[in-house]
Amino acid sequence: MQPADKLILHGLVVTMDDQLTLIDDGAVAIVGAKITAVGATNEVSGFIGPTTEIIDATGQLVMPGLINAHTHAADALFRGLVDDLALEPWLERLWVAERKFLRPDTVRLGAQLAQAEMIRSGTTTALDMFWFPEVSAQVAKEAGFRLMTGPVYFDLAEPDNIPVEQRTARGREFLQEYQRDQLIVSCVTPHSTYTVSPQYLREAQALVDEFGVLLTTHVSETTTEVATVSQRYGQSPPRHLDQLGMLTSRTVLAHCVHLPDDEINLLAKRQTAVAHCPMSNLKLGSGVAPLPKMRQSGVQTTLGTDGPVSSNDLDMWAAMRLAAVLHKGVQQNPTLLSAQEVVKMVTCDAAEALGLSDKIGSLVAGKEADIILIDLNRPHLVPRYDVYSHLVYAVGRDDVATVLIRGRMVMQQRRLLTIDQTSAIAAVQELAQQIASC
Amino acid sequence: MQPADKLILHGLVVTMDDQLTLIDDGAVAIVGAKITAVGATNEVSGFIGPTTEIIDATGQLVMPGLINAHTHAADALFRGLVDDLALEPWLERLWVAERKFLRPDTVRLGAQLAQAEMIRSGTTTALDMFWFPEVSAQVAKEAGFRLMTGPVYFDLAEPDNIPVEQRTARGREFLQEYQRDQLIVSCVTPHSTYTVSPQYLREAQALVDEFGVLLTTHVSETTTEVATVSQRYGQSPPRHLDQLGMLTSRTVLAHCVHLPDDEINLLAKRQTAVAHCPMSNLKLGSGVAPLPKMRQSGVQTTLGTDGPVSSNDLDMWAAMRLAAVLHKGVQQNPTLLSAQEVVKMVTCDAAEALGLSDKIGSLVAGKEADIILIDLNRPHLVPRYDVYSHLVYAVGRDDVATVLIRGRMVMQQRRLLTIDQTSAIAAVQELAQQIASC
Repeated sequence: MQPADKLILHGLVVTMDDQLTLIDDGAVAIVGAKITAVGATNEVSGFIGPTTEIIDATGQLVMPGLINAHTHAADALFRGLVDDLALEPWLERLWVAERKFLRPDTVRLGAQLAQAEMIRSGTTTALDMFWFPEVSAQVAKEAGFRLMTGPVYFDLAEPDNIPVEQRTARGREFLQEYQRDQLIVSCVTPHSTYTVSPQYLREAQALVDEFGVLLTTHVSETTTEVATVSQRYGQSPPRHLDQLGMLTSRTVLAHCVHLPDDEINLLAKRQTAVAHCPMSNLKLGSGVAPLPKMRQSGVQTTLGTDGPVSSNDLDMWAAMRLAAVLHKGVQQNPTLLSAQEVVKMVTCDAAEALGLSDKIGSLVAGKEADIILIDLNRPHLVPRYDVYSHLVYAVGRDDVATVLIRGRMVMQQRRLLTIDQTSAIAAVQELAQQIASC
Repeated sequence: MQPADKLILHGLVVTMDDQLTLIDDGAVAIVGAKITAVGATNEVSGFIGPTTEIIDATGQLVMPGLINAHTHAADALFRGLVDDLALEPWLERLWVAERKFLRPDTVRLGAQLAQAEMIRSGTTTALDMFWFPEVSAQVAKEAGFRLMTGPVYFDLAEPDNIPVEQRTARGREFLQEYQRDQLIVSCVTPHSTYTVSPQYLREAQALVDEFGVLLTTHVSETTTEVATVSQRYGQSPPRHLDQLGMLTSRTVLAHCVHLPDDEINLLAKRQTAVAHCPMSNLKLGSGVAPLPKMRQSGVQTTLGTDGPVSSNDLDMWAAMRLAAVLHKGVQQNPTLLSAQEVVKMVTCDAAEALGLSDKIGSLVAGKEADIILIDLNRPHLVPRYDVYSHLVYAVGRDDVATVLIRGRMVMQQRRLLTIDQTSAIAAVQELAQQIASC
């Protein structure tokens, strides 16, 4: 038995493995980037070697890091710039700001700020759609954050000044560069069926097929979008994508607020996953997605925060709690969507939807060590009767004490270790003064 | 000018006064329990005396403490005991636990835990309906927490073993004891129209009239309740209360999920306030209250968390954010309920609804010093374009750094000063082991 590099001891281990094993006085052994053992502390403590770093998790809960299945993280630069507005004036104001202020150097700041926030709140993986993905990827490499991102398709050249006819060539460069990366997971991110023409959607899918990566796009977020696309192409966004061969088991559709039953069944048949973003959908007035129906119909569902312009933060705990209560309330059925189901949606199920279940999503020997420790000794987390209920209805972002990604400690007892938070905050505050007056 | 006992300097002061004045480099002077000046730091710093305690609020937001208009705080003992169940099995399990475990000594623990949680999250006043109100009041006196509570009416003697015919006499004792208290605000809290018969509702109202205090009760939370009461008395809960003379400007109705337009108009006419509890209403599957309609019709509305058995914590930030996004999403109208309106609902408007606007709800000279300081230097709170948007959509419970109630510092830089949190947590954890196995 190989001695562990790191050994987490005495935690309440919530494995999220196939049996949803809970271990009361539990331990996790880590060698390099990988988990080598998970079990009772008295068993796993045999992995101690002379150089093993011991992480005492007494009074803490140990679980897989959360997976945010839809965001535009670096939009953190514009957090709160446009609120309580209808979608059209909202987009108009945002796009003016994005065109004027997004450059590699500003995206770098936004990505640092966002990744700091995500790590601090226990998110260890995010599926991110944003301009200059190579910049966010570089920040993630430095921060040790697991970022899934890649080329954007959008029919206008702004704000990254890439003409749409060059997007495939530029995208291929990104995919080649990160093809074998251990931390950055490449994907292709055409914006939507209303902002990307069929020709370039086809090119996006061709890149996906060429590199065997995942594709994500916005689908049926608002009734206006559905009407626009239906008028333009004679069919709804999901059917339009299907005709282009883009509904596959390697596709993640964000939002899906306005889906009739036949389209839900289509997604189930195609094994296409959905990233539900309830905070954004409510705040923008988009509506309430038929999440319970999707799940009952066999659609793989996950959760996302959406970007901090719409949500207005990157807090997966808020997303979990909202998803758990929203559908119960709207449908007046408190048995819909149990707390346990919601925790699965952001761990093991999300890993599967993102094609990463061999690497992350549960604490199992052989997987990579994306692990968060949650401090349970806080008034709002006492007492504790059910672990999953606690995680969904009471735990919050600031209860996350320690975060490891690929075995690397990126936050320890609330101290960020890989991002200089103070200088990122100062730089963004300076930039924000210009943005505010634009 | 009298030198201040305490002087908060260099904060972003969000006064919530009638003009909604914001002061960028602002200050608040406090003498004893009261605010004596609010203004720019360079003006108010003239109040420094030789013994003035300076509270440096650089990088912090300074605002009135939050007001939770509906809770059962000491139910924190049962947090997470019964989740994801329909209301009937939920109540059944809860009531068994309450009958078996609620005694003055256990309520004391629950109240300590809950008040610790409330202070830590920036709540400085709570309207609380719970058994043994004298116990929670005593805990609040010790903690320096502003608790509004008083005699319960319930047609069964359990769990406090007070036969219903003795409740008025016992209630009068409470009201007499706290009549002149500066911190504890008395009120009368009959449980509901389906659990208290008309005779005792009348007695409750008589007590209210005798002492000139506020009355609060549950109204039209579920369709079952409305059907039960309508069948029993030939009219809905609000109409039943109205017939008993109980809809007044000194009444706060919790929930009001199922109100037709004519009843909304009746509440407006009677100037009766509503405590909206969206987290609880959604989680229990009760439905979505017609909050925008109530507000448009002129009903005074406030926010509550409800008890930690249903919500499952006492986090007013979560309640604010949920209230702000829920109605936008359900009605597909992002302009409903602005962030500024929501902040008013938990500060100045709530104070008015609770009959306390001469004392709390805004930072104005002459009012009492219930003040919270929020740390803005955190990744999820950067940048900042609009203060109210920030408070509703991004700030959370753990961003509250310092809390004063009646001029007394009860939390300083996240350290609770008036409640022994460690021993309360330990005692509740021990009790919870018995509760879990019941």
